[in-house]
Amino acid sequence: MAVVLPGSTAEVAAVVQYAHAQGIAMVPQGGHTGLCGGAVPDASGRQIILNLRRMRDILSIDTLEGTVTVQAGCRLADLQQAVEAKGWYFPLSLASAGECQIGGNLATNAGGHNVLRYGNVRELCRGLEVVLADGRVWSDLSGLPKNNSGYDLKQLFIGSEGTLGVITTAVLRLVRQPRQQLVALVPVPDIATALRLFGAINDEMGEALTAFELMSDFSMMLVARHFPEVVASLPLNSAWSVLVELSRPGTAEDLLSSFSGALDRSIGRTEMNDAVVARDLVQGSRLWAIRNAIPDAQRREGPSIKHDISLPRGQIAGFISELYPLLQDRCSGVRPCVFGHLGDGNLHFNLSAPSAGEAQDFVLQRERLERLVHDRVVAHGGSFSAEHGIGQLKRNEMARYKDEVTLDLMQRIKYALDPDNVMNPGKVLPDR
Amino acid sequence: MAVVLPGSTAEVAAVVQYAHAQGIAMVPQGGHTGLCGGAVPDASGRQIILNLRRMRDILSIDTLEGTVTVQAGCRLADLQQAVEAKGWYFPLSLASAGECQIGGNLATNAGGHNVLRYGNVRELCRGLEVVLADGRVWSDLSGLPKNNSGYDLKQLFIGSEGTLGVITTAVLRLVRQPRQQLVALVPVPDIATALRLFGAINDEMGEALTAFELMSDFSMMLVARHFPEVVASLPLNSAWSVLVELSRPGTAEDLLSSFSGALDRSIGRTEMNDAVVARDLVQGSRLWAIRNAIPDAQRREGPSIKHDISLPRGQIAGFISELYPLLQDRCSGVRPCVFGHLGDGNLHFNLSAPSAGEAQDFVLQRERLERLVHDRVVAHGGSFSAEHGIGQLKRNEMARYKDEVTLDLMQRIKYALDPDNVMNPGKVLPDR
Ligand SMILES: Cc1cc2nc3c(=O)[nH]c(=O)nc-3n(C[C@H](O)[C@H](O)[C@H](O)COP(=O)(O)OP(=O)(O)OC[C@H]3O[C@@H](n4cnc5c(N)ncnc54)[C@H](O)[C@@H]3O)c2cc1C
Ligand SMILES: Cc1cc2nc3c(=O)[nH]c(=O)nc-3n(C[C@H](O)[C@H](O)[C@H](O)COP(=O)(O)OP(=O)(O)OC[C@H]3O[C@@H](n4cnc5c(N)ncnc54)[C@H](O)[C@@H]3O)c2cc1C
Repeated sequence: MAVVLPGSTAEVAAVVQYAHAQGIAMVPQGGHTGLCGGAVPDASGRQIILNLRRMRDILSIDTLEGTVTVQAGCRLADLQQAVEAKGWYFPLSLASAGECQIGGNLATNAGGHNVLRYGNVRELCRGLEVVLADGRVWSDLSGLPKNNSGYDLKQLFIGSEGTLGVITTAVLRLVRQPRQQLVALVPVPDIATALRLFGAINDEMGEALTAFELMSDFSMMLVARHFPEVVASLPLNSAWSVLVELSRPGTAEDLLSSFSGALDRSIGRTEMNDAVVARDLVQGSRLWAIRNAIPDAQRREGPSIKHDISLPRGQIAGFISELYPLLQDRCSGVRPCVFGHLGDGNLHFNLSAPSAGEAQDFVLQRERLERLVHDRVVAHGGSFSAEHGIGQLKRNEMARYKDEVTLDLMQRIKYALDPDNVMNPGKVLPDR
Repeated sequence: MAVVLPGSTAEVAAVVQYAHAQGIAMVPQGGHTGLCGGAVPDASGRQIILNLRRMRDILSIDTLEGTVTVQAGCRLADLQQAVEAKGWYFPLSLASAGECQIGGNLATNAGGHNVLRYGNVRELCRGLEVVLADGRVWSDLSGLPKNNSGYDLKQLFIGSEGTLGVITTAVLRLVRQPRQQLVALVPVPDIATALRLFGAINDEMGEALTAFELMSDFSMMLVARHFPEVVASLPLNSAWSVLVELSRPGTAEDLLSSFSGALDRSIGRTEMNDAVVARDLVQGSRLWAIRNAIPDAQRREGPSIKHDISLPRGQIAGFISELYPLLQDRCSGVRPCVFGHLGDGNLHFNLSAPSAGEAQDFVLQRERLERLVHDRVVAHGGSFSAEHGIGQLKRNEMARYKDEVTLDLMQRIKYALDPDNVMNPGKVLPDR
């Protein structure tokens, strides 16, 4: 029906109050980079979009507390730049940083590359201001790290994808900028070896480990094919590769020798010689570019069916070896493009069509293949949505995989905060 | 009316179902170490206590994921020992560890010494099983670090002090055992200097900083007076002292030289020479013993009025210099005993009676003095309950300091999950 671009919390509140009184449904929208349709209105033409992009001010940076107070419409990349200029670092790291907004990040509880060290954005949030479904403003922007005075209400809004209120301002935790970083690309024959390396680095270097990303040979080959400027030829020649990032306030030498030791002791000297170790930020960003180009490379390769899954790390190898033949069985020639955040058990388990010719046919099998993958995920104790959320796209999955009690509790919370169901209806919760 | 000691989740559910049907109010109880009366029934004689101490099994330790699954009645110290035997570490550190239970820790979102590094227990929780107010069981024990499939319901129960359900099982995150530790006691003339040191260590050593505790000279003097075996004479002679703990997987030499450098650069070589640095665990635990003896020493000194407050760190010096004269004004001779977790802005701002003779009179002034302290705390952007919660004791403060919208949201959540108000009624939420 309309796209509204409020310029302040008071304007958001006024619009929401009006819409609530008129029974008009609202769709909060940030940078519109969400992958589950959460910021997309339904087809009725009777919903209004509340896009927060005009509310992009960084209100204050508190260098003693290590916090930043920011309006929800601020783009992630703009926030990162502003705090880095003051010697701090906001460790949420998403490839969509140039477009997504802090409000959208919080509403989806975004994850990204550094979760294994810094947590999801939930762990980085110290306070929120929210316009509720009836237009009242709830605010707790004190930013205190310790505050046990009553229920921690901000937790309700984080990750609820705009169904409980519009986030207008946030206080976020910052960390010190790492002075030294080491990035390495390590070939591994299998996932068990990758996890052995993960264990050894954790053991010997603990907190220094800030990213541990897995890439299948197919996913890297797609990058080499579609983005030769990123990687002219495959740097490594093995079934899997991991991208390891270590960060520390200490010296670079330290990191390198500890890392070599961990590598040697966990997977042996042979693989170590094959590893590509970046010794400066430029080299490091070249290695990251490979990882970050995978989604686009897969897009250029043709249609695909994507899964954003998480599993207990110990289940991943078994899950994959069980699923690969089942997939070939159902869809001969399908090409799994597997990559993601192995360190926190989150894989992007994407399927590329067997060949461009069969693309049309392939997409029609989406539901069947998703079912197969998600059934196996749940059987292995995992989740069918690790970081992207539910939105509209995964509501069927909610109905299928969540138990009655969980769905009932969610409905009760939704009803308690939005009894008229005007705030992003048709998202997250399955129809009952 | 009765104390019930269920032995399993099914037994908890059966009792709750029965009590719910009969309209009998229930009080969940853990180790009964809570400091706000949350686990104490009202005077009606018509409530039942559900004490979980028989449910103390450690169900599994997953050394690959770094998690432990444990029944809620397990004592914190027992859990710590069990995971340490496997080379892991559960970083919740409370002086009540020998008695308090994991369920109580979660229900109060307990804090303690290591919050500045590892967060409150909320940040350490990966999954919960809860018996709801009507006896249904809600369970999410998958323990996945990333799972954005719907509202994160466990957040509701953490810190809600038993008013929304009975926690029966939890999945908790573990960290690697630190191999090397350095503990130092550093004299500082004022809080500004303490914060300069805090900033320097943070800057230069980042994650290695695991505790940063403040003690006033009076609080340490009380320990010397009442526990001469802990500290024969005051080790330091200055208005304030900080206890610094650094932990790292690396070598001890490393820690010591980095620490000395940070000390030197932040507060100068003079104070450095006065600092007491422990180079092994035994010496380190002697320094910690001073800090940990303060609450008992204050008890021996006579009656006191306690405040568990948090403030933005930058406000603390101003808050104290403003409050001290006001306190003397209202209660001449009152002796503030100030100590606590400076690193996360949480102080135990306790007041000892002017002298033993005036004890009776002093206690009568509790409400007036609490009001004075909490008013100043809130004026400085702080919270009147940092880690101990609300229980029964601070419900008046909730009514006084929380705004209408916050109280309304809390009531709505309470009503959504416990419409019959049978789960720990009369706690946390003020009467309306
Ligand atoms: C190239 C690319 C890479 C990505 N990488 C990652 C990744 O590594 N990890 C990850 O987690 N995600 C990733 N994403 C997904 C996406 O970027 C994140 O979900 C992001 O947090 C969404 O932010 P947004 O501002 O674009 O939100 P939108 O897409 O606009 O909205 C997302 C949801 O949040 C709600 N919402 C938005 N703003 C508000 C608000 N102010 N108040 C209340 N609700 C609001 C919307 O209603 C919707 O339900 C990626 C996306 C792309 C395109
Ligand atoms: C010497 C001493 C030192 C302390 N130091 C600290 C400190 O540094 N930091 C800190 O945060 N606290 C501290 N405390 C306070 C206390 O130890 C903590 O609040 C602890 O988490 C309470 O655990 P408990 O098992 O004793 O809970 P209880 O006292 O039994 O109960 C506390 C609250 O939790 C609820 N509850 C208990 N178990 C459950 C359950 N299974 N399900 C649902 N609700 C439940 C109760 O209803 C009550 O509201 C200290 C206390 C003492 C005596």
